[in-house]
Amino acid sequence: MSKRRIGFLGTGIMGGHMARRLCEAGHEVAAWNRTRAKAEPLEAHGARIADSPAAAAEAAEVVICMLSNGPVCDSVLIEEGVLSAMPGGSLMIVMSSIPVETARAEAEKALELGLRYIDAPVSGGEPGARDGTLAIMAGGEQRDFEEARAIFEAMGRPTLVGPVGSGELAKLANQVIVSNTLATVAEALLLAKVGGADPAAVREALLGGFADSTILRQHGKRMIEGDFKPGGPAKYQLKDQRTATALAGALDLELPVSTLVEELFDAMVSHGHGDSDHSGIFIELQRLNGLSPDGG
Amino acid sequence: MSKRRIGFLGTGIMGGHMARRLCEAGHEVAAWNRTRAKAEPLEAHGARIADSPAAAAEAAEVVICMLSNGPVCDSVLIEEGVLSAMPGGSLMIVMSSIPVETARAEAEKALELGLRYIDAPVSGGEPGARDGTLAIMAGGEQRDFEEARAIFEAMGRPTLVGPVGSGELAKLANQVIVSNTLATVAEALLLAKVGGADPAAVREALLGGFADSTILRQHGKRMIEGDFKPGGPAKYQLKDQRTATALAGALDLELPVSTLVEELFDAMVSHGHGDSDHSGIFIELQRLNGLSPDGG
Repeated sequence: MSKRRIGFLGTGIMGGHMARRLCEAGHEVAAWNRTRAKAEPLEAHGARIADSPAAAAEAAEVVICMLSNGPVCDSVLIEEGVLSAMPGGSLMIVMSSIPVETARAEAEKALELGLRYIDAPVSGGEPGARDGTLAIMAGGEQRDFEEARAIFEAMGRPTLVGPVGSGELAKLANQVIVSNTLATVAEALLLAKVGGADPAAVREALLGGFADSTILRQHGKRMIEGDFKPGGPAKYQLKDQRTATALAGALDLELPVSTLVEELFDAMVSHGHGDSDHSGIFIELQRLNGLSPDGG
Repeated sequence: MSKRRIGFLGTGIMGGHMARRLCEAGHEVAAWNRTRAKAEPLEAHGARIADSPAAAAEAAEVVICMLSNGPVCDSVLIEEGVLSAMPGGSLMIVMSSIPVETARAEAEKALELGLRYIDAPVSGGEPGARDGTLAIMAGGEQRDFEEARAIFEAMGRPTLVGPVGSGELAKLANQVIVSNTLATVAEALLLAKVGGADPAAVREALLGGFADSTILRQHGKRMIEGDFKPGGPAKYQLKDQRTATALAGALDLELPVSTLVEELFDAMVSHGHGDSDHSGIFIELQRLNGLSPDGG
């Protein structure tokens, strides 16, 4: 695999690991972060620290953006001149979770400037970023995806899921499944518990059957043990669910289960549990039923 | 493990395999089925065919009931005299999916007659019954469960989930998770599809992450391929979901997602798709949105 000159924007909790892995794979990385101190540990891995986003981009063959959200990403790429600094023909890869429409608009601007664009948000959290096992959902041209494959594979398992915007769509599909399955497992375990069975044994009995899921295994265990340290804070789960149902609305698409689950997470956050792990929806369901968090 | 004298009631699609596996494990099986011809193939495996349910029960140490539903099971056990034919101290194991209250009432009658009782419904369908890999969810006394363990292990993987009735509760929890996850995966794949991504690639990208589930793997594939041959017919899924929400109602428990998903399956069955596989909820969701089954 050929080594590339990569500009990396946003070296926070996730991005720091991702940029390190690219250094370790032998790429020439120019890293930029708003708080410079968070980029500096990358120097030990061979990265150059850039003074501005445009400086990280100007000699790059590939620029990767892992900034925290759509507006930040958009403002750095456009107002702070990343796209206009990039050499003609180079490839912009946005790995932040941003709205589908933002990705499409950025791709259009990139195209006008003679650049190429892939949206490629990830799932797997900090452990996935650290270990290079992220699920990477990419939207763009097949040719560009193939060119970027080795770069993606330094960070995780990439799948091309359609044209530009599709990566973000896949991420929303992922988040909707996560939210709805959390609420579902909470309902099933609460029914078992209130009905008089041992919910821990019920969860155990269900593993390996049609009801099995990563959520039942990991978050079902949290619900039973009452361990709601994040993990994935409920407020972010709610934000993603809102983005998904808003997009569905814009597509004139009714998704009744996802809409209802959004209301449940909204109630959870309103009741002051936005910073709890999303599996804490189990507590919200008990509250809704006038039960104490111990199921009493 | 010691060989036991087992009366087996109901040798249909599931029960036929289960009784055969008990014969193969060396137990002495007396099999009864309303349509005798369906029990006769068991003779080749060493079973004796009984002329009545009571005849299958009268010399048994353990009687297993795998009849099709609660009323049938109840009428055979009580009106047709199975419980009163069973020797004192012997063990009644009901492996049919029946209402929790029916199981508890039967257990009480068994106790009055000096018998013991376990409810132990299964999940895993015909392949699980054939291969002896059923998930077996048992409710009863620990001592009785341990005594029956070797019998259960000839048919699958048993877990004791609580006192009598808990097996049926666990089965309902299982079914609620299955229904709700089916509707959830349908919503996520439809969002991806209508948004312009390739739903097959999106499903692929999500495997291994938090959104992963047996339903995404098996039924998500069916949704993408439009393969709705049952499998698990939607009308049975609806029946189980109704049983679960009715029980929740009796427990004064609100399960909003499960209640909504019951309505979706109800609509699917009303629209004439009760005999389709439960993954056909994907079609119902498209109908709800005025889309053709091809997503057009």
